[in-house]
Amino acid sequence: MNQKDPYLLTPGPLTTSATVKQAMLHDWGSWDDNFNGMTADVCRRLLAVAGGSDTHVCVPMQGSGTFAVEATLGTLIAPESLTLVLMNGAYGQRIGKILDTLGRAYIAIDKGDYHPPRGDEVAEVLAANPAIAQVVVVHCETSSGILNPIEEIAEACRQAGKRLIIDSMSAFGALPVNVAELPCAALVSSANKCFEGVPGFGFAIVDRALLAASAGQCHSLSLDLYEQWAYMEKTGQWRYTPPTHVVAAFLQAMKEHEAEGGVDGRLARYTRNRDRLVAGMRELGFRTLLVDEWLSPIITTFLSPQSPAFDFRRFYDAIKAHGFVIYPGKLTVADSFRVGCIGQLHDEQIDAVISAIAGACQELGLPLPVPAPADAPDDLKNA
Amino acid sequence: MNQKDPYLLTPGPLTTSATVKQAMLHDWGSWDDNFNGMTADVCRRLLAVAGGSDTHVCVPMQGSGTFAVEATLGTLIAPESLTLVLMNGAYGQRIGKILDTLGRAYIAIDKGDYHPPRGDEVAEVLAANPAIAQVVVVHCETSSGILNPIEEIAEACRQAGKRLIIDSMSAFGALPVNVAELPCAALVSSANKCFEGVPGFGFAIVDRALLAASAGQCHSLSLDLYEQWAYMEKTGQWRYTPPTHVVAAFLQAMKEHEAEGGVDGRLARYTRNRDRLVAGMRELGFRTLLVDEWLSPIITTFLSPQSPAFDFRRFYDAIKAHGFVIYPGKLTVADSFRVGCIGQLHDEQIDAVISAIAGACQELGLPLPVPAPADAPDDLKNA
Repeated sequence: MNQKDPYLLTPGPLTTSATVKQAMLHDWGSWDDNFNGMTADVCRRLLAVAGGSDTHVCVPMQGSGTFAVEATLGTLIAPESLTLVLMNGAYGQRIGKILDTLGRAYIAIDKGDYHPPRGDEVAEVLAANPAIAQVVVVHCETSSGILNPIEEIAEACRQAGKRLIIDSMSAFGALPVNVAELPCAALVSSANKCFEGVPGFGFAIVDRALLAASAGQCHSLSLDLYEQWAYMEKTGQWRYTPPTHVVAAFLQAMKEHEAEGGVDGRLARYTRNRDRLVAGMRELGFRTLLVDEWLSPIITTFLSPQSPAFDFRRFYDAIKAHGFVIYPGKLTVADSFRVGCIGQLHDEQIDAVISAIAGACQELGLPLPVPAPADAPDDLKNA
Repeated sequence: MNQKDPYLLTPGPLTTSATVKQAMLHDWGSWDDNFNGMTADVCRRLLAVAGGSDTHVCVPMQGSGTFAVEATLGTLIAPESLTLVLMNGAYGQRIGKILDTLGRAYIAIDKGDYHPPRGDEVAEVLAANPAIAQVVVVHCETSSGILNPIEEIAEACRQAGKRLIIDSMSAFGALPVNVAELPCAALVSSANKCFEGVPGFGFAIVDRALLAASAGQCHSLSLDLYEQWAYMEKTGQWRYTPPTHVVAAFLQAMKEHEAEGGVDGRLARYTRNRDRLVAGMRELGFRTLLVDEWLSPIITTFLSPQSPAFDFRRFYDAIKAHGFVIYPGKLTVADSFRVGCIGQLHDEQIDAVISAIAGACQELGLPLPVPAPADAPDDLKNA
């Protein structure tokens, strides 16, 4: 691969800095102090970013983000307890699927593809179902790109005395969260999202007392978050072989995150990326799925142009030939595609991807501005 | 980290080549054809090395090797069926622990720390327990470094009509295995062992018909080997985010494995490493735990010298100061430490580690040759 790598405008894996990748040019023993020190540093930094240094612990987990979500749910949710799952896309549905597999009972509020679950709805269901012990919500639902209102959901949980578990996979690191203040019992995220590391592990920031009370609950040996934590407390090591190089890259990524101004700095850049992208795409005639209020600075869903000349596979390939990888849609109601704002992307790349998309439209024989879909739901209209 | 990295004489993660690590200096989209092509290439090559191209499929699994073992057992073993687990160390015991967690019934043959399970013992237990559906064995039990006789165990299984599952974590790639001829239903291994990749995923080579009949059996969403396979067959993609950089490194590692002469070439080098290491260590007065017949070319356990001057932590640090990382012991019966033969180690490094160990002994105030343990069991004696 001698040509320049394409930029990834995807929800992760994403384009990382050269220095993050170069941190992988060493080998470490998984038993050795040098490596254990890196793990401890990563956990300490993550706790600080989450505002949980005094109340929570950070437990990394090998595998993709879904592994960390399953580990967290399987470890923290008592087998006989009832859970409320808030769904508005593929990742909320996946949480339901995990609980199905684990045989844990749950009630769902399913808002479809592009409506956020609201605090008052949560309060209502909690009041009607006092047996619910915990609520699970996805922070940024990347299937539509919607940013769910976790503050009002946390407030509803707090008032009802229920635990909140947040899947903040694609948001943590770029959106401010304070697990102690929200409060939330557990927040799950992964290495290859807004911290801009490479994929290979996820992690959970968990209320220390809750985790300490969770021994023996997990359905899996490998995914037992309690045992991972207990072993790490005792030895400083991961319980089973860690992805050493990925951890080294992540530590470098966290240093670069801090150097950019932490969550505030990263949010500012991603917000600028999104605003520039949405403005440029609207000039080309594209429409966003969501109204501006719910657009996240992570990834944006655009409705596919209404034209027989539009074919996603050809569109994707044409954009890739210009050096950018975009992401397919994941909606049930409308044809769409997604463009991410996260990773090592700056004004220059956003401008270039808009040019690449304009070029791809021309190559596909689409008029510019592109014909907007006629049948978009009413509430998708932007003023 | 500007100083030269220490060589890892450990059972993995191990010292990889510079070119394997350099393969991680790119980013890939997990949805993109470039990456999917790498995954397909890796699986095709692994099947060929295992001799299973016509009969088996290769399914990678995110996480450490234990994740892949749990995924394989959880997916392939029917909930109501009975399993025979052969144990002679920590990894065999871990298989029992996985089955405990999953609530799968099993019988164990436990040979302690340094005796191999033999074919006739397996045949006897299978004859006495016709309900047993499958046998699980560890190929190279790295807790002692013993190489278990999988051919005679496979023959006992074949004669009794039972399925064999092999945890070949630290052996596959350096020890010849032919899954179709043995036969074995599934063989599990990982990226960071004898293929000399970096850690981040494992894989199973599974009988195609058996896997196809295993839908819906797994206890876990993330670790469902059947669903991973079915999704990959349909889309070419991993079901959840893959460790893209680790996969790229592994493909490079497999090319280097092939260039070294495949399994034969690697076995020759590792065997030379072991012979050179054992001869040098015996000259220093050290004794191996095992008689020569059962020494693997993967890792060797040495009994700790019988002297109050010997302290493993100081010994380890002194050797590390010379540029080598060794591995602690994992025995219940005898004080010991381990030295690995796998990874990018050649004559030069083996000679240097022997010098480093001699130097460490002097720094600890141990006489040379070191005082050998007086209470080693009879059958540990080497002629």
